[in-house]
Amino acid sequence: MQAIQKLQRAPGLTLTEVSTPECGVADVLIRVRHAGVCGTDLHIADWDEWAQGRLKPPVIVGHEFAGEIVELGPDVGDAFHIGQRVTAEGHIVSGHTKQSRTGQGHVCPSTRIIGVDRDGAFAEYIAMPAKNVIPLGEISTVIGSIMDPIGNAFHTVLTAEIPGSTILVLGCGPIGCFAVGVARAAGAARVLAADLNPRRLDLATQMGAHVTIDVTQDDLVQRVMDETGSEGIDVVCEMSGHPTAIRQALECARPGGRVQLLGIPRQDVPIPLAKEVIFKGLTIYGVVGRKMFDTWYQMQTFIGSGLFDPSPVITHTFPLEQIDDAIAAIRSGAAGKVILDIGGNA
Amino acid sequence: MQAIQKLQRAPGLTLTEVSTPECGVADVLIRVRHAGVCGTDLHIADWDEWAQGRLKPPVIVGHEFAGEIVELGPDVGDAFHIGQRVTAEGHIVSGHTKQSRTGQGHVCPSTRIIGVDRDGAFAEYIAMPAKNVIPLGEISTVIGSIMDPIGNAFHTVLTAEIPGSTILVLGCGPIGCFAVGVARAAGAARVLAADLNPRRLDLATQMGAHVTIDVTQDDLVQRVMDETGSEGIDVVCEMSGHPTAIRQALECARPGGRVQLLGIPRQDVPIPLAKEVIFKGLTIYGVVGRKMFDTWYQMQTFIGSGLFDPSPVITHTFPLEQIDDAIAAIRSGAAGKVILDIGGNA
Amino acid sequence: MQAIQKLQRAPGLTLTEVSTPECGVADVLIRVRHAGVCGTDLHIADWDEWAQGRLKPPVIVGHEFAGEIVELGPDVGDAFHIGQRVTAEGHIVSGHTKQSRTGQGHVCPSTRIIGVDRDGAFAEYIAMPAKNVIPLGEISTVIGSIMDPIGNAFHTVLTAEIPGSTILVLGCGPIGCFAVGVARAAGAARVLAADLNPRRLDLATQMGAHVTIDVTQDDLVQRVMDETGSEGIDVVCEMSGHPTAIRQALECARPGGRVQLLGIPRQDVPIPLAKEVIFKGLTIYGVVGRKMFDTWYQMQTFIGSGLFDPSPVITHTFPLEQIDDAIAAIRSGAAGKVILDIGGNA
Amino acid sequence: MQAIQKLQRAPGLTLTEVSTPECGVADVLIRVRHAGVCGTDLHIADWDEWAQGRLKPPVIVGHEFAGEIVELGPDVGDAFHIGQRVTAEGHIVSGHTKQSRTGQGHVCPSTRIIGVDRDGAFAEYIAMPAKNVIPLGEISTVIGSIMDPIGNAFHTVLTAEIPGSTILVLGCGPIGCFAVGVARAAGAARVLAADLNPRRLDLATQMGAHVTIDVTQDDLVQRVMDETGSEGIDVVCEMSGHPTAIRQALECARPGGRVQLLGIPRQDVPIPLAKEVIFKGLTIYGVVGRKMFDTWYQMQTFIGSGLFDPSPVITHTFPLEQIDDAIAAIRSGAAGKVILDIGGNA
Repeated sequence: MQAIQKLQRAPGLTLTEVSTPECGVADVLIRVRHAGVCGTDLHIADWDEWAQGRLKPPVIVGHEFAGEIVELGPDVGDAFHIGQRVTAEGHIVSGHTKQSRTGQGHVCPSTRIIGVDRDGAFAEYIAMPAKNVIPLGEISTVIGSIMDPIGNAFHTVLTAEIPGSTILVLGCGPIGCFAVGVARAAGAARVLAADLNPRRLDLATQMGAHVTIDVTQDDLVQRVMDETGSEGIDVVCEMSGHPTAIRQALECARPGGRVQLLGIPRQDVPIPLAKEVIFKGLTIYGVVGRKMFDTWYQMQTFIGSGLFDPSPVITHTFPLEQIDDAIAAIRSGAAGKVILDIGGNA
Repeated sequence: MQAIQKLQRAPGLTLTEVSTPECGVADVLIRVRHAGVCGTDLHIADWDEWAQGRLKPPVIVGHEFAGEIVELGPDVGDAFHIGQRVTAEGHIVSGHTKQSRTGQGHVCPSTRIIGVDRDGAFAEYIAMPAKNVIPLGEISTVIGSIMDPIGNAFHTVLTAEIPGSTILVLGCGPIGCFAVGVARAAGAARVLAADLNPRRLDLATQMGAHVTIDVTQDDLVQRVMDETGSEGIDVVCEMSGHPTAIRQALECARPGGRVQLLGIPRQDVPIPLAKEVIFKGLTIYGVVGRKMFDTWYQMQTFIGSGLFDPSPVITHTFPLEQIDDAIAAIRSGAAGKVILDIGGNA
Repeated sequence: MQAIQKLQRAPGLTLTEVSTPECGVADVLIRVRHAGVCGTDLHIADWDEWAQGRLKPPVIVGHEFAGEIVELGPDVGDAFHIGQRVTAEGHIVSGHTKQSRTGQGHVCPSTRIIGVDRDGAFAEYIAMPAKNVIPLGEISTVIGSIMDPIGNAFHTVLTAEIPGSTILVLGCGPIGCFAVGVARAAGAARVLAADLNPRRLDLATQMGAHVTIDVTQDDLVQRVMDETGSEGIDVVCEMSGHPTAIRQALECARPGGRVQLLGIPRQDVPIPLAKEVIFKGLTIYGVVGRKMFDTWYQMQTFIGSGLFDPSPVITHTFPLEQIDDAIAAIRSGAAGKVILDIGGNA
Repeated sequence: MQAIQKLQRAPGLTLTEVSTPECGVADVLIRVRHAGVCGTDLHIADWDEWAQGRLKPPVIVGHEFAGEIVELGPDVGDAFHIGQRVTAEGHIVSGHTKQSRTGQGHVCPSTRIIGVDRDGAFAEYIAMPAKNVIPLGEISTVIGSIMDPIGNAFHTVLTAEIPGSTILVLGCGPIGCFAVGVARAAGAARVLAADLNPRRLDLATQMGAHVTIDVTQDDLVQRVMDETGSEGIDVVCEMSGHPTAIRQALECARPGGRVQLLGIPRQDVPIPLAKEVIFKGLTIYGVVGRKMFDTWYQMQTFIGSGLFDPSPVITHTFPLEQIDDAIAAIRSGAAGKVILDIGGNA
């Protein structure tokens, strides 16, 4: 089959021909139809410091995908069937640690990630443990292929109290734009979104932001205080990872409010803990992955019922062989979500 | 009456003779019997930068106290009676802000603190709004006089899930020692306590710590990992405010764990957010004051039922006129809780 | 001033001329503009068993209202001003019980209700304790006058987890219809509403119900199972008080689901606890009043932001002197919310 | 191997010789050392209505056990090892339902129970799915064999807020006595226990009850009000299933309190919902099984740390062949926990 591999310990990705993976006894084999391209794939292509420390080439990259089941391992039972359209949680946990047995699988120390620690989804086929597989029901494989990053947004937003709250999303990349949509769908009274790229702010508006703030034009904290009658924000979602934005996230939160940190800063961030965290009685929550599997059921109901539609965020689609163009689109900073079409709809 | 005042914008505290305060229509007038001396009083005596920016002398200092009611304002109603032994929440909130009306009075922007923003409790009498007054029941005025800092410990510990959990208390000053006792009383499976002062570690042991760690002898993080089978701590209570300790608090927390920050750092603290907060899925909570009034009811039941006894932490008692000795005892770093006796038991 | 009084221990209500109430030191005096008529007022008019046991005539009836402030007691401070448009929580609690000091004022044993235990709001003026008064901001006095029953609906719905959930509202009187609207605004994936009156089901549809079930035509439990793929309902709101509906509420809830009971049955209800509560792991919550004051802040943001609009539920408006017509409209069973206009908009 | 079977659709249990079970690919085979006898086994022996409707003989009975691993299926991986001492969750869920994937496996509709729906643990060997197996660590197989009912008590108690609370346990059979111990270990301020059997009340005292109430001597509700200053109980645990006790449980709960229902009534129970549930704002929670697997980790830490010791509740031990004596001891009503010794300590 065709696949995109990281072949060598050097920059670049390669389109290769490899054997179709074997379907283990507790696995399902999936014909991949669509796959999402992520900032992580950019780091792998660029072979940055993180990638050098983590990947062991050769490895098929890609961790966001959807497709249909073509083979069932003998121990899978009757929970799935051939031809079923599915996606999958890409974090594979042992199932025997305390975290994975008590609803905290997203921070299980034994996690292995597809497309990073083992072969992934930029390929015609992928074998996945049945316990990680999620039925799509009526959801398309286009949308299914990006439920991994959509799930980051659901995890970020729905671990806070949203109905009737004021929300600020800092950083309007794809996950930030999804977060805007989730907050609206979950009954936020007011959603503010901030970025320095006008195209991203347009996407945030399309996803339902009541107010967008261009941080190259406005003083973010001042503007937020003006918009909230100086009360500050109930729930701040920091999706950029930029040190300045992280400090502003804390300043914008109201006393007793909550800050969800998903964006990953590259180095230590100096934090005014006394003034902005302790005296304000803030709660800060670090967001990684998706809750297994509460987040997936939330996505199924929100997307399936029409409450949440991520379509406006998808700005580019490429065939598998144009992976370099897909990576370039992300690198440009102006793309929303970029998708690979690997054989069309199931 | 006698009182300890901050008379001038300069270091020092002064024993003075002033008028007994008037009892407002919604106030009760209290004959103070015991008062607790706090690190905050040390800052006021020293006239440090914080004190210079906040206090407007002359002001009677002191915010921790207990005594008996000697007068009731005409609007107080029948909730209290003359002779009743009481203490009080020293944070006075308007009662009309969103925070003070929705159980978050501890972060109400309109808070005024007795002994800081208005006259306090190092005096023979204090007038307090009835809504801030707490009946002591069978609790002595000695213990009642330190329910303010005990309440900081209850707020810190009981806003986390304690039964069956592993707890680390970083910093064994009086509030840290109280936190050890609260964690034990609330069913912690294991309580570790760390400090650099052996006398404070002794107090922590007396309050029930299973393990004490002298950070001048041991590598804290390594020791904690050894003690927990490399799992890390469920709930870390950071009571020191030291930047190194704050970073260690995050490192010691298990993936999915919780860090309660009460100790106040003097400057920004560089935090490894990616590694220690986001990828670990931590929750961080800034602790200020006491929950109004959930924390006070918790204290009444824990102390009243005998579950929690703060007595071992009280190491020094002085009469009002020896305020300088009391301040010196705190400054020494080896004291537990220091109390003023202002006319003996009611 | 004009007022509607219960004058004697017998059926009927009387329009009378009485003195304007005095404004106590901690009260505000309010010129009432609109008042809501409630099933409770019907019980009082009919002088039923409950009314006979509770009311001590003469008493001005009515507990739902809004108007503008015309006088401030000397102890009220600067939280309110003359001319301000306000409504009020009609449950007056002492402020000194454990419940009222720890966010459970709605179940405070010392509660006194206006229009029941003391003079109420069907009058040109009412004096209210300032601590019970709620600013309306941009909200009209028409809407403000029914925030009491709207608050019952918010309390019922928002004490469950709503975003992405399936909701069933049993009983589409005004509070049931409000509950439909709150559930939609808070991000319910699917809202089903059931009643035996087609006009009420029409109102439920106007408030956003995805599915209405006429229980005179359909088997409720069977229909709910058909609509949910036999999974059952996440959150059932029982607003009718009818014993059959209460048992059906439990049957319709999914294993692990939640049932909110607001409708008040007149006698004991036989409950299949083993099959429907214990083996299903249900949570049942009894709803009374409004959370003080979390529910009021939720209403302010939901109504103020446009997320929730109760207007379609208001079906009748009468002047004060037509109280008998207002009562008759409620008695007919086909009315939505019935309002008294007492001097028009402020 | 030897086993206790339900051989025929008639009263009685039979000691038989059967083949050792096969170890499936995802199973572990366990040499059973100790097993707990439960009221459920009594129902099966008696062949009552419930048993007639559920069991399909022949089936090996027994669902509470501990032993050591003697064989690992090929797909089990390295989470377990030969010779490891273990117990197991006896509710086997599919792992693919919403409930079992979102922390509500205890109410999964597809649950199959060992010793009821498939062969159980009153035998020398049992094969269990590895995902259900729990390592004992330092815990003995005696204690391990009763972690199933101990888990019912942990689930009942620790799904309420216990530190500093007042608890009432209604019904002091083994699970009730365990609940007393868990409540004490988790920091309850006061634990009251009620039963009609003095021997059971003695066991409750041994497990830490502050107050025991013999309901044949005292009016339960009156006594509880006397003991609580008429405030009522924060958390009531109903473990008897008796209709009178269930109604008293509701009456004893304070306004805003919580009632956990574990005891299973045989028929519908008439409940005064208006007075005791709705106007009091109660929360009621139906308890079934153990949370998978939060409850098991709680037990490991509470028992492993010494916080909780169930030993006093074990009153009888019999060899496998004396199953009839074991059943008779339970039937007497005076036994605590009854255990089978099947080959002694591992």
